[in-house]
Amino acid sequence: MSAGARARKTVASGQWSVVSVVGVGLIGGSFALALRKAGFAGKIIGVSSPRTVRAALERGAIDEAMPLAEAAAQSDLIYLAQPISRILETLDEIDPLVRPGTLITDAGSTKTEIVRRASKRIRRGRFVGGHPLAGKQTRGVREAEADLFRDRPYVLTSRDAELERAIKRMGARVVIMKPEQHDRLVALTSHLPQLISTALAETIGDEAGASRVAGPAALDLTRLALSPYEIWRDIFSTNSTAIDRALRAFIKKLEELRTTLRRGGLEGEFARASKAAKTLRRK
Amino acid sequence: MSAGARARKTVASGQWSVVSVVGVGLIGGSFALALRKAGFAGKIIGVSSPRTVRAALERGAIDEAMPLAEAAAQSDLIYLAQPISRILETLDEIDPLVRPGTLITDAGSTKTEIVRRASKRIRRGRFVGGHPLAGKQTRGVREAEADLFRDRPYVLTSRDAELERAIKRMGARVVIMKPEQHDRLVALTSHLPQLISTALAETIGDEAGASRVAGPAALDLTRLALSPYEIWRDIFSTNSTAIDRALRAFIKKLEELRTTLRRGGLEGEFARASKAAKTLRRK
Repeated sequence: MSAGARARKTVASGQWSVVSVVGVGLIGGSFALALRKAGFAGKIIGVSSPRTVRAALERGAIDEAMPLAEAAAQSDLIYLAQPISRILETLDEIDPLVRPGTLITDAGSTKTEIVRRASKRIRRGRFVGGHPLAGKQTRGVREAEADLFRDRPYVLTSRDAELERAIKRMGARVVIMKPEQHDRLVALTSHLPQLISTALAETIGDEAGASRVAGPAALDLTRLALSPYEIWRDIFSTNSTAIDRALRAFIKKLEELRTTLRRGGLEGEFARASKAAKTLRRK
Repeated sequence: MSAGARARKTVASGQWSVVSVVGVGLIGGSFALALRKAGFAGKIIGVSSPRTVRAALERGAIDEAMPLAEAAAQSDLIYLAQPISRILETLDEIDPLVRPGTLITDAGSTKTEIVRRASKRIRRGRFVGGHPLAGKQTRGVREAEADLFRDRPYVLTSRDAELERAIKRMGARVVIMKPEQHDRLVALTSHLPQLISTALAETIGDEAGASRVAGPAALDLTRLALSPYEIWRDIFSTNSTAIDRALRAFIKKLEELRTTLRRGGLEGEFARASKAAKTLRRK
């Protein structure tokens, strides 16, 4: 089928033939590799800067590169793996470019603003918000892995049989969750840990000599403090209310620990925390 | 030389011939293995419960096992690697058992109370407080490693040429520090991270469904929450003032982050935290 014939055809349910990944970094590249490993035999198009698509082609993550309009016109699935603010911009412009019924999904770390924007802008296509709870400390398509999502949760904000099937084949656990619930929960499980690590590194850094006695605990808990701000800027600006709520709950818990510490006997706290930490590790 | 002849001989400076490890768990066992690997050719005696000495003998960490009095009478170095409260008890009884000049050191995680107790009780022997900033999540002599202290700080509360030499040969970095300064700093770098992890696990655990979206950050930062309370009880009871001060400083930093988050723009905080986290990693 020619690109023109494909462009005129409405996307039907069933197998995808052409998938476009917009933003071929660590996540976009890993999605492409995972999709291929899961058995996808169609074409994977990358939409990114010239430098990134070169790296993605070298990594074998994409088959071809082209501009968004051209890619969108022939895709059955469009995967937006850009920073959140860029995803919002892409949602503003993509709908006129796609064929009716094209599935559009994203990998942004917050969901409320993205899903709200999509519900306003996506008319011809269908949008399903997504968030793979996976990552690495290093970024870029050179670090992409076909197994990055394996054994990790992959949140979708609504159901789509084919997308769910593909994600399951990648070894991830599909979790269906409303955008607001997702943002409230990741504020606790992801954004709060980042801010804790930032605050701890600063607290330790304020004390001269502390680095001389830094053991594994200090190193483990300040690792996230090395994260670049660029990837957090959009998360903070799109989820500040839930993050503030998480910070307040955490500070309250710390104040309770202070009180219990003065009285002596943190057994109860340790038992509850250990139970919660084990629950987090249960699949 | 017979045990009797050795017992009558005052310990001179120079090479140790007999070393006793009291409490042959992960740390005591690793010290014994590290000492051996560092070239120590003398005898290593283990003083522990029958079950533990059996495991220590099997692991090859010690040459013989005997009761404290018998071991103390022939040792040039006595290494106390028990829980803090047991170290305090051993310090109450050990001095009459040792030959004049015997070096006694410990591996307790807090130093002020231990060094204070030793300064009251140790007369015939010489006491140098110690704390290897190393560990593993699993305990016991079966987990002991000759390289456990490698590239880690090893705090001593006063100088001793032969002990420092031995520790350096184990690959550790000797850090000389007063007990109060040590306790203030480990409150920040070790005890605070533990309580943060405990509080975070509880905070996340309070929110139903949070475990469904737990990514690497949540898992990393709640790992310490799995620590058994037994190893923390003595640390909290012997360092509560410094720990409370560390908690207060950390909560203040979190409140500052909340304020900055509301205004927007955490670049400055991220830059400072990243710099501090890098300093912690500098050797």
